[in-house]
Amino acid sequence: MDDTISSLPRPSRRAARDYRWDQVEVRPYKEDERALFKKVSRQILFSDPALSSELRYFEVEAGGFSTLERHEHMHAVMVLRGRGECLVGREVRNIELHDLVIVPPWTWHQFRAGAGEPLGFLCMVNARRDKPQLPTPADLAELRKDESVARFLGGSEEQR
Amino acid sequence: MDDTISSLPRPSRRAARDYRWDQVEVRPYKEDERALFKKVSRQILFSDPALSSELRYFEVEAGGFSTLERHEHMHAVMVLRGRGECLVGREVRNIELHDLVIVPPWTWHQFRAGAGEPLGFLCMVNARRDKPQLPTPADLAELRKDESVARFLGGSEEQR
Repeated sequence: MDDTISSLPRPSRRAARDYRWDQVEVRPYKEDERALFKKVSRQILFSDPALSSELRYFEVEAGGFSTLERHEHMHAVMVLRGRGECLVGREVRNIELHDLVIVPPWTWHQFRAGAGEPLGFLCMVNARRDKPQLPTPADLAELRKDESVARFLGGSEEQR
Repeated sequence: MDDTISSLPRPSRRAARDYRWDQVEVRPYKEDERALFKKVSRQILFSDPALSSELRYFEVEAGGFSTLERHEHMHAVMVLRGRGECLVGREVRNIELHDLVIVPPWTWHQFRAGAGEPLGFLCMVNARRDKPQLPTPADLAELRKDESVARFLGGSEEQR
């Protein structure tokens, strides 16, 4: 039996090398003029009609951040690389290796890498899910009333 | 805002320390006389009525192994600690950090830690799922026709 990693059939096993996986496409998020996210890539690790959820790996480069958004579906997150901060509702938390984060329904959330280190995390989501909502200027003003949230969001000039 | 990890409310965030998580119970599998599994513990990291899947962390101590079983539901696995071997169908594979394993429906599978190192892995499963089937003596005899499978299973005297 061939025991090398590269020859494995797609469904059975794929090996990780530096937070990349064989036969898993790295999808860099395209940054647009709104700068809703910055320096984020996505890899879909598990997605199958027989699985009711998907498991994705997101990586935020140093200084980058994910989209500030909310939706009905939940996120179940585990940090896999580096460290950073997350906003969940009005809570700002430092997160590091293997920390777990639940994003409840309709809760504003954002993930940020620190200045000097990437932040990589697994995110489990329902396969059938609603589309995210973006904050209105009024939502942002409301969020910024909390000092720690304002500091957290302050990192992206575009969302002031 | 209190920034310590231990004070966090259960849903929002739990921190990892040595492959344990705050407020997550470690459930050692009780070994019985059939020795269907050996030295395995389980932690349920994410389970919620709004999530259509669960994410669990299994740890197999050095020399231990999970139950040899099959079922309709799929397993989506990522290695999080150490290394070992897995059987999926008739394939025996070495697995190590961050490797991905898909167990298709109705496929015999077992995970084994090496002699000197634990094997820890995440396992995503549908929240609604069927119960596992155990191999009959005839199933085992069929599996053992393959030399590499026989060697893999040979580690547990009880399953000869």
